[in-house]
Amino acid sequence: MIENYNAWPTLAAIRERVPLVQNITNFVAMDIAANVLLAVGASPAMVHAAEEVTDFVAKADALTINIGTLSPAWIDSMSLAVGRAVELGKPWVLDPVGAGATPYRRLTAGRLRDLRPSVIRGNGSEIIALADAETSSGRGVDSTDSSDQALDAAKVLARRSGAVVAVTGERDHVTDGEQTITVTGGHPLMAKVSGLGCAATCLIGACCAVTGDRMLAAAHGLAIMATAGQQAAGKADGPGSLRLYLLDALYNLDEKRLRGEAQIQ
Amino acid sequence: MIENYNAWPTLAAIRERVPLVQNITNFVAMDIAANVLLAVGASPAMVHAAEEVTDFVAKADALTINIGTLSPAWIDSMSLAVGRAVELGKPWVLDPVGAGATPYRRLTAGRLRDLRPSVIRGNGSEIIALADAETSSGRGVDSTDSSDQALDAAKVLARRSGAVVAVTGERDHVTDGEQTITVTGGHPLMAKVSGLGCAATCLIGACCAVTGDRMLAAAHGLAIMATAGQQAAGKADGPGSLRLYLLDALYNLDEKRLRGEAQIQ
Amino acid sequence: MIENYNAWPTLAAIRERVPLVQNITNFVAMDIAANVLLAVGASPAMVHAAEEVTDFVAKADALTINIGTLSPAWIDSMSLAVGRAVELGKPWVLDPVGAGATPYRRLTAGRLRDLRPSVIRGNGSEIIALADAETSSGRGVDSTDSSDQALDAAKVLARRSGAVVAVTGERDHVTDGEQTITVTGGHPLMAKVSGLGCAATCLIGACCAVTGDRMLAAAHGLAIMATAGQQAAGKADGPGSLRLYLLDALYNLDEKRLRGEAQIQ
Repeated sequence: MIENYNAWPTLAAIRERVPLVQNITNFVAMDIAANVLLAVGASPAMVHAAEEVTDFVAKADALTINIGTLSPAWIDSMSLAVGRAVELGKPWVLDPVGAGATPYRRLTAGRLRDLRPSVIRGNGSEIIALADAETSSGRGVDSTDSSDQALDAAKVLARRSGAVVAVTGERDHVTDGEQTITVTGGHPLMAKVSGLGCAATCLIGACCAVTGDRMLAAAHGLAIMATAGQQAAGKADGPGSLRLYLLDALYNLDEKRLRGEAQIQ
Repeated sequence: MIENYNAWPTLAAIRERVPLVQNITNFVAMDIAANVLLAVGASPAMVHAAEEVTDFVAKADALTINIGTLSPAWIDSMSLAVGRAVELGKPWVLDPVGAGATPYRRLTAGRLRDLRPSVIRGNGSEIIALADAETSSGRGVDSTDSSDQALDAAKVLARRSGAVVAVTGERDHVTDGEQTITVTGGHPLMAKVSGLGCAATCLIGACCAVTGDRMLAAAHGLAIMATAGQQAAGKADGPGSLRLYLLDALYNLDEKRLRGEAQIQ
Repeated sequence: MIENYNAWPTLAAIRERVPLVQNITNFVAMDIAANVLLAVGASPAMVHAAEEVTDFVAKADALTINIGTLSPAWIDSMSLAVGRAVELGKPWVLDPVGAGATPYRRLTAGRLRDLRPSVIRGNGSEIIALADAETSSGRGVDSTDSSDQALDAAKVLARRSGAVVAVTGERDHVTDGEQTITVTGGHPLMAKVSGLGCAATCLIGACCAVTGDRMLAAAHGLAIMATAGQQAAGKADGPGSLRLYLLDALYNLDEKRLRGEAQIQ
């Protein structure tokens, strides 16, 4: 099993195959998400009009949906895009940003959860809200629950939705409701850069595009992000330089560093 | 009064209390605004759908509204969010980007001005346009009037609207129509980084969330920005590196530097 | 003719006259596009509401339209803005992002093409799709055709639309259907930074605002970008630092470097 926990073949496959990853993500994270995808070697596209999302899904290798900045028109497009992805057997990843923060968000996240996502990635509060396992409303888009506290909810959510669930925080847990993979590493300073969680979701989308094993796709995406983030934090003086070094580190990540530093258990 | 001009307790309170600042801001500034708020220790959220803005306001500690990229749906959401904030006694800050540039913008900014903002922050041309004190249409979103030229208009606007008005430029003036606080510092290169004015508005929102004194909240927010900007400009080779160093400087700002370098009179 | 290929007078004119460049561009590129325009000395404004676009065009010195993130409301605004620009004799530049990727995009790009753009800038696949010269659907928003392969299509498109067409890639070609100027330089790493092509379109808009010669405006805009990009790539460790250094290089570009390093033939 150890060999499977090596994220390198997944990153190498992204670089070689340059998967087209379509993202309906929030306005705040679009820039960093696109740059993270480019840095790892994928081809990002942000396309959201109802008039074209299904056509675009047919060309894409994976789809990611993020509810960070919602509106009725975008929700319609999300449903259309997801419907087409499922129909075509293409992987899609859900990021339920602030799922418990408002009724509108909870409802939207719940409906998307029930449309057979391949992977769901969220912070502790979001995963708890989406699992309905216990009550957590979250306070905003930042988590008030640790990823460890949310692991049980993640398992419930995985079993209920059929998705692989990745709950991220100080430690990242990836579960299908039965087995759990834990990814450590990263750095607390990463939480001070806007959109890195959203970008990780898009990166998991790229991983899903090159491997059919959703548990490994999620774990590898998070391990790639954590390894690059840890390298970047080692050089950074704050969140401004961290963001820059993270993109450089993602671009330069090689097999030796990724195998040596990624902590996947 | 000197002690009150010390911005440190305000920054320390943001870091300790991590206020949730809801922003309906323009698409261009969302990224830098979110990152500035994270760097100072606040929790930013960009939420704009009419279906959820009022629910979110109920959770937020402060609201900021920026008219940089308008649309009818967003204007509706701005009114809803502001109405709820006023109802709940929560502070809200208005940024009338390009207020005089088009009739649509002038009308929208004027309506928001009349909804009892806690603080209004704009450049010279915007404050003059919003005060209707004299004619200034501005040329675009950049100011053609200095902050000093706009000080009288700022006082008129403060008296008319009941808001504390912050007019920013080479020198920043904060006035309630009677008293005026002036913040100097910063660096001309800051004007070459997109969205720093908008981000300052969001930062003032964070300050309003931790202190009830709106004059000090505005002055402290601007002093924090100016101090970090000045530090960053000392290292920067241009606007690209300035942006990076500014975020690092905001994150690392300590009492000694802030008290020693902030120029509030 | 050699002297005309010197981009310096165009950059100097932008810095001196600070043209107001209105952009209806995609959500992903707004940040970098605004920062590129500020770095070269122009005044960017992103304005898209149908209620105000025509009023704003009347104030702007140039307009750029980018179809990267479409929606019906934005398409209406694009048409309105372009109609007004043409009526007032103001230059406007079209960026047909992903023109061939979906029928909606192809239709929208085609309609805008027929509204007399001053300049069209796109990658190989986009220009081929827009020319209808041969079949290229593109795969997403990244090109699958080189700029050299698209040169014939660019000429057809230029003759058909009356626009100067700039097809960018490893080498950039600018053509009016008869004459062709080629700009070399730049660096492959630039393709790993999201939105640099879109930002180049906005920069061409700034150039069009200060010179009536559209061939030179396009060539100079691309030469400025390529020269700064090449300088930046010489220092960069990856796409994160490239973006930062590019903005610094644009801001600091002087006559000696621009004349010495820009490769325009």
